[in-house]
Amino acid sequence: MEKVFIAADLGGTNLRMAAVDDAGTIVSRNRMSTPSDGDQEDIVSAILSVIEEFKRELSGSYEFAGFGAAMPAIVNSHEGVILRSPNLPQLNDLRFEERFTRELGIPVVLENDANSAAVGERWKGAAQGVRNSIHVTLGTGVGGGIIIDGTLVRGIDGTAGEIGHIAVEPEGYPCGCGSRGCVEQYSSATAIVRITKEMLPKFPDSALHSILELTPLEVYKAGIQGDPLSLEVFRLAGTYLGIALGGLVNVLNPEVIVLGGGVSAGWDLFIEPLQSEILRRAFPHPGERVKLVRSELGDDAGILGAAFLASQKIES
Amino acid sequence: MEKVFIAADLGGTNLRMAAVDDAGTIVSRNRMSTPSDGDQEDIVSAILSVIEEFKRELSGSYEFAGFGAAMPAIVNSHEGVILRSPNLPQLNDLRFEERFTRELGIPVVLENDANSAAVGERWKGAAQGVRNSIHVTLGTGVGGGIIIDGTLVRGIDGTAGEIGHIAVEPEGYPCGCGSRGCVEQYSSATAIVRITKEMLPKFPDSALHSILELTPLEVYKAGIQGDPLSLEVFRLAGTYLGIALGGLVNVLNPEVIVLGGGVSAGWDLFIEPLQSEILRRAFPHPGERVKLVRSELGDDAGILGAAFLASQKIES
Repeated sequence: MEKVFIAADLGGTNLRMAAVDDAGTIVSRNRMSTPSDGDQEDIVSAILSVIEEFKRELSGSYEFAGFGAAMPAIVNSHEGVILRSPNLPQLNDLRFEERFTRELGIPVVLENDANSAAVGERWKGAAQGVRNSIHVTLGTGVGGGIIIDGTLVRGIDGTAGEIGHIAVEPEGYPCGCGSRGCVEQYSSATAIVRITKEMLPKFPDSALHSILELTPLEVYKAGIQGDPLSLEVFRLAGTYLGIALGGLVNVLNPEVIVLGGGVSAGWDLFIEPLQSEILRRAFPHPGERVKLVRSELGDDAGILGAAFLASQKIES
Repeated sequence: MEKVFIAADLGGTNLRMAAVDDAGTIVSRNRMSTPSDGDQEDIVSAILSVIEEFKRELSGSYEFAGFGAAMPAIVNSHEGVILRSPNLPQLNDLRFEERFTRELGIPVVLENDANSAAVGERWKGAAQGVRNSIHVTLGTGVGGGIIIDGTLVRGIDGTAGEIGHIAVEPEGYPCGCGSRGCVEQYSSATAIVRITKEMLPKFPDSALHSILELTPLEVYKAGIQGDPLSLEVFRLAGTYLGIALGGLVNVLNPEVIVLGGGVSAGWDLFIEPLQSEILRRAFPHPGERVKLVRSELGDDAGILGAAFLASQKIES
């Protein structure tokens, strides 16, 4: 019987799950609101009930061979423990892997969502066949995942990949992580809205004055109409991301940088400053060598990466 | 017959060479001035003549099994080509590996000096048995080498490891690499002398006013006597290095950071600001986890690393 892997993308708002076969095809999907007001058990139960649905639907045709979960949290991916989950703090310290292995009796793997996305893009997306790549997720925050010699870099405790928390202004904007001037404070969706609001008074003619509730999409839409405030905000986002990535290009000499997440839809508005800042910061050989590409899998990158990591676990 | 590997540390001033056995013991050494006024051929000949000496001395007892060279340059370590050698520009574009393989008939490997030092410290020094480490060489410049899962990170063209060229002040001091505000401009021996000179007017009582030719050693000696200018310069060096390393700790989650090179002798004066800046910048788990240690091999780290890389080449 063909193997299938269950994969979950456990966000603060949505719980997206899928059953993924060995070849990376999604054979079934489910999407529900994360019961974020509930306690730890409510969230565990919600995940288990979706898995039960998949089993009812698919167990005649597939063998359930593993479960992989991706979430926007600091996780110890070696031990499968959630260390710090800002959006779902009730999950802090949950021994996720141990708990779900006990419930399901199959191999379980837990990974940070951007790390999973890096693996997904390498398996089925924009970094297929690439041995050294950096994945950047430009969403509410800035996440990252590093692939070296074809393997996800996890670090000694499995917390590696936090590209968003490279400092690009040593005494810059305070970050939720406790540091200051992290690139997340300049290049995330949250930062784009914050910086737009901060700079509105300097751009009295900006069309963005008429928007009641500023969103990254509204800022982007103004930018493609040529609004100078929007263009400046995206220029800053690209430039600061280039400072962080230019340094990483010197340190890691990657072949490809994959950009995903909601803000990557603003590609046209930030790619030029991003590219020129990388060239300015990095040595000529690695700077000219690295290719910037857009995520091909979008929201499915994390799901597919989690499924792949689960499939690797049964092989190891 | 026991195997021996020839290793060279090819600096702008000194050419240091050694014959190293399988166990990492240096069985013979040679040190001469690099013929830096000569052309490419003069330097190649100098290296070959030292190898001939080793052969005369050792060929009765040892089989010459490989040659590894480390140099302070941007090298393509996959192809063994010198891309950019600031101190010995006549070596730019030399196909080092090809040339010496032809001359010697044994496997040849070329690596950046800080990358070699990282490998040497993992083999025989401060990072033995460590799977994930960062090596930092605080010398004339700031060099680096990254070990992930026990293997040196070389990147797609073999230029990886350039930690010194992470920007820590986006519009800071101009760097020889073309960027600005690289950590090398704040934490290298060169930077310590430059910043001391810049700050002398602000410290009218500093003992350093009486020093005719400022060196990092003189600045250090003043610091252990409590000179406030020296203490401030080393505090800045440690703090800026902490900004760069704090980001890398978030990205790579290493177990150990090894600090080598001449400036690391000033450990007592910079280790506190360095450590507290890493804790301020990095997430709590990876920040508290990483250990800062001093190089154990000193000047031999690069030689031993080059020998080890040569020994690996014959195995692969």
